[in-house]
Amino acid sequence: MNRLSLNQITTKNWTLPQAVQGCVNAGIPAIGLWRDKVAETGLAESARLVRDAGLTVSSLCRGGFLTTPGPEGHRTALAENLRALEEAAELGTDTLVMVVGGLPDGSRDLTAARTRVADLLAELAPHAQDFGVRLAIEPLHPMFCADRAVVSTLAQALDLAEQFPTEQVGVVVDSYHTWWDPQLAQQIARAADRIAAYQVCDWTLPLPADALLGRGHVGDGHIDFRTLTHHLTTAGYTGWIEVEIFNEQIWNTPGEQTLRTMIERHHTHVVGSDR
Amino acid sequence: MNRLSLNQITTKNWTLPQAVQGCVNAGIPAIGLWRDKVAETGLAESARLVRDAGLTVSSLCRGGFLTTPGPEGHRTALAENLRALEEAAELGTDTLVMVVGGLPDGSRDLTAARTRVADLLAELAPHAQDFGVRLAIEPLHPMFCADRAVVSTLAQALDLAEQFPTEQVGVVVDSYHTWWDPQLAQQIARAADRIAAYQVCDWTLPLPADALLGRGHVGDGHIDFRTLTHHLTTAGYTGWIEVEIFNEQIWNTPGEQTLRTMIERHHTHVVGSDR
Repeated sequence: MNRLSLNQITTKNWTLPQAVQGCVNAGIPAIGLWRDKVAETGLAESARLVRDAGLTVSSLCRGGFLTTPGPEGHRTALAENLRALEEAAELGTDTLVMVVGGLPDGSRDLTAARTRVADLLAELAPHAQDFGVRLAIEPLHPMFCADRAVVSTLAQALDLAEQFPTEQVGVVVDSYHTWWDPQLAQQIARAADRIAAYQVCDWTLPLPADALLGRGHVGDGHIDFRTLTHHLTTAGYTGWIEVEIFNEQIWNTPGEQTLRTMIERHHTHVVGSDR
Repeated sequence: MNRLSLNQITTKNWTLPQAVQGCVNAGIPAIGLWRDKVAETGLAESARLVRDAGLTVSSLCRGGFLTTPGPEGHRTALAENLRALEEAAELGTDTLVMVVGGLPDGSRDLTAARTRVADLLAELAPHAQDFGVRLAIEPLHPMFCADRAVVSTLAQALDLAEQFPTEQVGVVVDSYHTWWDPQLAQQIARAADRIAAYQVCDWTLPLPADALLGRGHVGDGHIDFRTLTHHLTTAGYTGWIEVEIFNEQIWNTPGEQTLRTMIERHHTHVVGSDR
């Protein structure tokens, strides 16, 4: 339990105050926040609520979307991510999750999109350090390459992150996005203290109509969490294990029940007797 | 046109004789066959039809499914793939496309599944050479890792293929499965004369309810075919460009029309003025 965090998208129908109270009631010591939920409650009030509840904010979701071309696209992305860094600092988290963005409308130029990501990271990284927040690049599953993230593998995220000091840019290891990767064990070892967050949910089939929402509770799918967690532990990662699930059916389940399932699966599938 | 091939799944509602006649009428010089369609027409009759029509059989789909555990699973997979090799030889093609198989029912052990693939390839490779047929390992998109293929990247396919002589084991480069890969250019260069087949269709969004059927005509989606073809040409691949599309809507279109679209897109998006 001492490493478990609720990413609040998992209880999407809860407001931020409800999610905070839910964690307190369930004995979950940390929470990953989303910017839209923070905005709904107000930044200062959100910060006060989590602080008063004694919760650690394991991460803020999310910055990124760096691939829009042109000076206006560049300016907007920069401003938006600076705001996200500021919010992260005020909320007291050291981790801003970065979903880098997909191909711009009408473009097929992956190389150009990836170059824009690298360029904007270079501008943002020193600011991140000033805020005491780390940019955590999240490789998304390759099925989101066109519309969400042109960074698709941990190796690719590390190639980017390693251009910067470790305290400025790290990576997210999300089970759903990376479990299939034949290089996963090797890249987790390489990542070592670049690992800024470990997010979990399961790969279940069939994929739903909206592929974004196909993620399951840990234990309901095909991912071997014990082995994955073992790789992370061996690499030196002993931080939060954040449960982040996009799933319409789970969203429609009462939050208390979702948290109970989360806790149970955490013990039976993720931690417990390490191999 | 002289490199264009119709993979017959693209005209799924055509029988083999219809697909052969369609190619002849449209001036398409090659065809990729499917074993179920060949069985429907009969092996000897299928071989006679393509030979009499003067078509090249660019590949046979498909062998593989090598991940079932246990002696019975092993025996079945071996026997089935030997039959596929024999059929390929009789049909006069030098390429058997291999979809290696997903996780066995109830298993989360990717490493074990991948080991079974390597072991069965080692048994099959010498037989392939005896038949004058090359086993062409097809990495499938990572979204098919659980249910169809535990080989997900070209690098991984090459790591396997390179255990064997080039004439025994090669790889398939399919645009749909590989376009997102940040290592794609580099791995195509590495592949060189291991490239046994180049299959094309486009990545379109949204994914349909059955993710298998989401592939579009070349030019309808997000893939930069000219750059991809350029990488293949630079690597020395000058073989067939096989159009393989799984798409319910395209299947319900008259085959003649599908072939016209295929030919048009081939000229405007795949070949033509190389960069």
